[in-house]
Amino acid sequence: MQSPGSLQIGLIGLGTVGSQVADRLLNHRDSLRRRSGMDLQLARVLVRSRYTSRAFAVPPDLMTTDPEAILGDPSIQVVVELAGGEEPARSYLEKALRAHKHVVTANKLVMAKHGPALLELAGEMNVDLYFEAAVGGGIPLISTFKVDLLANEIERIAAVINGTTNFVLGRMAAEGLDLAAAVAEAQALGYAEADPSDDIGGFDAAYKLAIMASIGFGARVHPDSVYTEGIGGVEAVDFRYARELGYEIKLLAYAARAGSRIEARVHPVLVPHGHPLAAVEGNHNAVYIEGDLVGQVLLQGQGAGGRPTASSVVGDLLDLASSIRRQVQTRVAFTFDPDIEVVPMSEVIARAYFRSTVADRPGVLAAIFQVFGEEGVSISSAIQKEAFDADGSAEFVVTTHPAPDAALQKTRERIAGLDSVRRVSAFLRVL
Amino acid sequence: MQSPGSLQIGLIGLGTVGSQVADRLLNHRDSLRRRSGMDLQLARVLVRSRYTSRAFAVPPDLMTTDPEAILGDPSIQVVVELAGGEEPARSYLEKALRAHKHVVTANKLVMAKHGPALLELAGEMNVDLYFEAAVGGGIPLISTFKVDLLANEIERIAAVINGTTNFVLGRMAAEGLDLAAAVAEAQALGYAEADPSDDIGGFDAAYKLAIMASIGFGARVHPDSVYTEGIGGVEAVDFRYARELGYEIKLLAYAARAGSRIEARVHPVLVPHGHPLAAVEGNHNAVYIEGDLVGQVLLQGQGAGGRPTASSVVGDLLDLASSIRRQVQTRVAFTFDPDIEVVPMSEVIARAYFRSTVADRPGVLAAIFQVFGEEGVSISSAIQKEAFDADGSAEFVVTTHPAPDAALQKTRERIAGLDSVRRVSAFLRVL
Repeated sequence: MQSPGSLQIGLIGLGTVGSQVADRLLNHRDSLRRRSGMDLQLARVLVRSRYTSRAFAVPPDLMTTDPEAILGDPSIQVVVELAGGEEPARSYLEKALRAHKHVVTANKLVMAKHGPALLELAGEMNVDLYFEAAVGGGIPLISTFKVDLLANEIERIAAVINGTTNFVLGRMAAEGLDLAAAVAEAQALGYAEADPSDDIGGFDAAYKLAIMASIGFGARVHPDSVYTEGIGGVEAVDFRYARELGYEIKLLAYAARAGSRIEARVHPVLVPHGHPLAAVEGNHNAVYIEGDLVGQVLLQGQGAGGRPTASSVVGDLLDLASSIRRQVQTRVAFTFDPDIEVVPMSEVIARAYFRSTVADRPGVLAAIFQVFGEEGVSISSAIQKEAFDADGSAEFVVTTHPAPDAALQKTRERIAGLDSVRRVSAFLRVL
Repeated sequence: MQSPGSLQIGLIGLGTVGSQVADRLLNHRDSLRRRSGMDLQLARVLVRSRYTSRAFAVPPDLMTTDPEAILGDPSIQVVVELAGGEEPARSYLEKALRAHKHVVTANKLVMAKHGPALLELAGEMNVDLYFEAAVGGGIPLISTFKVDLLANEIERIAAVINGTTNFVLGRMAAEGLDLAAAVAEAQALGYAEADPSDDIGGFDAAYKLAIMASIGFGARVHPDSVYTEGIGGVEAVDFRYARELGYEIKLLAYAARAGSRIEARVHPVLVPHGHPLAAVEGNHNAVYIEGDLVGQVLLQGQGAGGRPTASSVVGDLLDLASSIRRQVQTRVAFTFDPDIEVVPMSEVIARAYFRSTVADRPGVLAAIFQVFGEEGVSISSAIQKEAFDADGSAEFVVTTHPAPDAALQKTRERIAGLDSVRRVSAFLRVL
């Protein structure tokens, strides 16, 4: 039975987040009604199997294994998609929008790859598409861009937006663990998946950055155009050198206005002590935004996990319910300028940190400095420690002033090729 | 001339914030139209005198000194009030709402004292009342409560929300300045008013807390019911002891759910190192929120100044314009439960920091400890430094475990009355 003051909800997916959303909808119904002026009714839940044991017991008559029981039912007004993955989730969302259903999703993969197209489709169909939970549960980000910062030209977004890598880097920094040991610890605590490659490789952060940059700069930023480098190249010793130089190492998602183009990249960065992002610890997330009027804003939260993500999903549902109750006649249509290009990484101006293992003999440093000079890369600081290996090799660390990334890469290659250089053991950027 | 796609704006006040708002409206018209779908037209500006010299030149034909030219003009759809002060601002807002005009205001005094009544009036008149800029320009706070955190039961709000006192405390901590010298420095830099008593006395923070607590807890929290204590009782030496114990000293605006009542208080607090609010520096503002689903969220920004505040005002205007363009038929009606009481300070359970100047002779500490014991206040840590005065007095610092504030106050009085105690030089709470 659909009463005029009710919102009929079809939920896709009943995992960690889905269970929390279902729990809130079924067990906090009165307080949700008070806040939105509407009755949020969980009408149907699509699951893969009815017989999986779950943390939260949904009444069996609400469950279905047939997508059509949600997508093809005209009484369902909003589809909440928490299944994740690209397909069939994307097709479900498109089908829901075309059937004039509103959509709330936490799917970063789909929103990163297909967000602009789906948002434009929602505009055509005059329905709402909400996706606060896709970027970082618990951080009020999309609504901040949509409302609070709308008077601004956004200049820069820098974010610690992947809790797994931030936890892993933190353990490497604090305990000197190697990457594998830190990842194993994260897995044991439930902070990393069995296959952590999406997090460790930077892809999760790149999806979230593509969404943030698209909204923040009104551009179509596909994750394929985000330069993405994971934390595989960071070693425990790099945290020691970084601290000596006044930095922490973070996996940063970074986007900035660069003339008529934008930069969008994900890679490990040496962040100076005193910068608010240097202090983001454990599996927390933080997004730092610079706007021309507002100056600097920092938004920080837990970023992941069932409850913070459910908070964003149910927040979106309440906003949708309130907008339906207010009889909104036409919907926000997002626009994305297809002509805004992403600067290729080779053209980005960046600072770099090199750690090389060199033969401990005269003339080595002169040869290295000559390469920097010839590539037009000037040096900001250098550390050479005493020889520490039986084979007489030593570590030599350099940070540079800003230079085109292509020149930094060329320098790296040429130094690695020098006779007296055993290897370039680390190559990271510096904020 | 009013075209269907335009929003006619009457601006009251052309000071620091008003000039920035007028500048943005007049000089960024195209980008604002692109973002809201409407033409934001600055139709009239109420000033006290046409002949004041101003940072930003508004066309003279837009200026008026007659409030009726805005409030009595049916073509004006929205009144932006940036005059400040309680009256006539409150009357202007009431009159505007009764004339079915939307309102955007940055007036914390009026919103703190009359916010619930004005918001309910706006609901009756079916117009919008926006006040993001009243709490802390640049921090996306009201919309965070209205949308992003709406699925949560808010448990706690703790905020460094007055830039002047945070700057002053920071200078006292870093340089050992006394309060007067630090205030003079803040005045010289434009961070404090000629009469800084609203900031130093904690009243500005109490207004902002009253607004935040009203929205966050759905209660009618009048600033008179917020226990308010300024930073006058903090001395430079307290920062040294606090750091030794692992704390910074901040003026905190604090509200929390306490059973069916709420706590709402403003006073200096020892905040432990590692808490995100301990690291808020200079004239920055930060608001820390705990919700039952989302966990912990931190929002940080510049908090004051013409540009960040204008960012919030114009953000509100864009949201209003977009809502008009979307033909919203009925408006959000805020509700405030008049039955939610504020816990009297005497009943609040708090921890305290005492610094006493005591005679350096046997039996003094025993007498002090006896008082603590008799009042049921247990001690968490104690520091006694060697005698440092010619008169043989010494400083004795104690922090306590949680106890009712009445017991802490009683303890303070009794200790101050002991023969061997010269004075209780500082009495602060501990987070």
